[in-house]
Amino acid sequence: MLIMIVLFTDYGQGSPYVAQIKAVLHQHLKRPVIIDLMHEAPVHQPMLSSYLLAAWSSSFESGSVFLAVVDPDVGDRKQRAAVVVADGKWFVGPDNGLLNMVASQARKVRWWDIHWRPKDLSNTFHGRDLYARLVCKLIAREPLPGAEEVPVTARLKPFWEAQLPQVLFIDRFGNAMTGLDFSRADQNQTLIIENSGQRLSYARTFSSVPPGKGFWYGNSSGKVEIAVNRGHAAEKLNLHLGDHVRFSQ
Amino acid sequence: MLIMIVLFTDYGQGSPYVAQIKAVLHQHLKRPVIIDLMHEAPVHQPMLSSYLLAAWSSSFESGSVFLAVVDPDVGDRKQRAAVVVADGKWFVGPDNGLLNMVASQARKVRWWDIHWRPKDLSNTFHGRDLYARLVCKLIAREPLPGAEEVPVTARLKPFWEAQLPQVLFIDRFGNAMTGLDFSRADQNQTLIIENSGQRLSYARTFSSVPPGKGFWYGNSSGKVEIAVNRGHAAEKLNLHLGDHVRFSQ
Amino acid sequence: MLIMIVLFTDYGQGSPYVAQIKAVLHQHLKRPVIIDLMHEAPVHQPMLSSYLLAAWSSSFESGSVFLAVVDPDVGDRKQRAAVVVADGKWFVGPDNGLLNMVASQARKVRWWDIHWRPKDLSNTFHGRDLYARLVCKLIAREPLPGAEEVPVTARLKPFWEAQLPQVLFIDRFGNAMTGLDFSRADQNQTLIIENSGQRLSYARTFSSVPPGKGFWYGNSSGKVEIAVNRGHAAEKLNLHLGDHVRFSQ
Repeated sequence: MLIMIVLFTDYGQGSPYVAQIKAVLHQHLKRPVIIDLMHEAPVHQPMLSSYLLAAWSSSFESGSVFLAVVDPDVGDRKQRAAVVVADGKWFVGPDNGLLNMVASQARKVRWWDIHWRPKDLSNTFHGRDLYARLVCKLIAREPLPGAEEVPVTARLKPFWEAQLPQVLFIDRFGNAMTGLDFSRADQNQTLIIENSGQRLSYARTFSSVPPGKGFWYGNSSGKVEIAVNRGHAAEKLNLHLGDHVRFSQ
Repeated sequence: MLIMIVLFTDYGQGSPYVAQIKAVLHQHLKRPVIIDLMHEAPVHQPMLSSYLLAAWSSSFESGSVFLAVVDPDVGDRKQRAAVVVADGKWFVGPDNGLLNMVASQARKVRWWDIHWRPKDLSNTFHGRDLYARLVCKLIAREPLPGAEEVPVTARLKPFWEAQLPQVLFIDRFGNAMTGLDFSRADQNQTLIIENSGQRLSYARTFSSVPPGKGFWYGNSSGKVEIAVNRGHAAEKLNLHLGDHVRFSQ
Repeated sequence: MLIMIVLFTDYGQGSPYVAQIKAVLHQHLKRPVIIDLMHEAPVHQPMLSSYLLAAWSSSFESGSVFLAVVDPDVGDRKQRAAVVVADGKWFVGPDNGLLNMVASQARKVRWWDIHWRPKDLSNTFHGRDLYARLVCKLIAREPLPGAEEVPVTARLKPFWEAQLPQVLFIDRFGNAMTGLDFSRADQNQTLIIENSGQRLSYARTFSSVPPGKGFWYGNSSGKVEIAVNRGHAAEKLNLHLGDHVRFSQ
């Protein structure tokens, strides 16, 4: 199988910035396989994005290379760039927390600071000018310029818990994915939405409950997700990115 | 020419679900050619989507394989999966009406129920776990597991008429495509929008009428479409998905 | 390196029209490399789009082929089609001003009127039926049917100045790109937003100013751009496409 390059950014779907990154990949690699995983990551929110990246990257095979950019500190020269390999998957992006959850959840992980700065690095578009070129070097098995391996523990700051009781993502149907692992959830428990106090019971899937009824379930990425059968949960339950939830008896 | 895999869903443009389907295709096939036809199909509306799929799939060549998912009954274990070949084009998706118009409009059509359920089938993401893998098997010319050919007539339920006098799709320009065939329309007739009673005459194309004027015409997919020259027809004429229209003298 | 086909349209991100163009490219070419640069160009505004195309096409390598469509005169039989080569990059699209800035900014440029009209040309979808096929012929190095070379100066009408003091594009972050070249801007000058009279100073990049502060800078495509550190400039400064700006002491 060919190596997949997987893009995860907050640039916006259809952004010309994504196109410019793809142009760099095509200029340096022969027929790269590029998959747009997400370009609507929470704007300038590395923490929420870090959990999303960890959840969704689990669908991809070992050897895949992820270019991840969610960066509120645009152009900050003090910010470190990072290359991380976590259970055989490679991640390239800013060292601002975005790569922390893939690193902290992996069994085997290595982390490199990247001190290299290309001469023609722009002030604002490190995705194109730095990270995309690092991806090319990884795929071409060239040495990473200015790479210094560091202990992972030195970089997992801030340290975030594996379970994040917040809404990470709302899809087109209105389903709200949380940062809680379904494998650790107790199906007898009630999920409470903190803002509104609304309480939801577990159901196996949509068609297990009547139309219009809200419930929680284990989604296809292994996370606890809130939905309404044949309805738009985010509208009906007034859910937004970052909203807090908790389990209760 | 290489076989094209054409994706038609209501997952939302830029959805991570689309990315996960593409990952499956790339994992099982060597350099698949994948085209995103539509990911903003009418949410959970197999009927409107069925007419859209039939209209747009006509642009693709024989041999193309369509993965189509618009499914309000998410996770329903009683729902059948289907593989259909209609005039040489292949369609994989749920048996909920979505594939009915491509089947009923074809001269030659065969239909298979798919009883196979992969062991790791998730409760909610059959697009990735079932339909994408069936597409891989079709492309690789492997036998379809658990396939039972059935008479097409047994599956065209509900049976929908070839002509659907409703708005199927509104594009970025505000043009509103209907489910009526242009080849059956009489250019001397007036198209009436049921809700508002507004009446539109035929014109060959946009530049045939003055700026700001509404008209109906035959669009590039062979359907009757409503437009306003240099204007946004849906806003100006207050059109929405599913709105009813009819021809009159 | 393989030749890149770069798509630039106002069809809308995720439009089925884009898919149909890609189908044509795949039907006539073996494994074309296609990049979606922009499908949300200013609707029916060839002038603003022309500056965007010129700015963004600079990221692509010589030999790239651009299919560009922004066309308010849909279906006008009097409109000319054009093929332009500007400093080694090829552009195919309507002769309505859209290609003027790439032509006028190039050192070496040639321009062909295309009189060819395919027999099955639809009235409204020249992107699929005419321009995409011209792209295929360029890539396949086939002669362009009905091509007549004309003096470039005869086609640069309307003639637009190299510097356009207007907002061309607003990205997902709210940053507003103008049609002014950064290389010609004086960093000691203040940028004034005409509508509101708001005044902005230069800064090197986002992290050079406090959160919430507006500034202007040179963006990654060499243009003057307006931004707010960790804020949405378009909302905060009430900016819209086409808004006028000017430099002042």
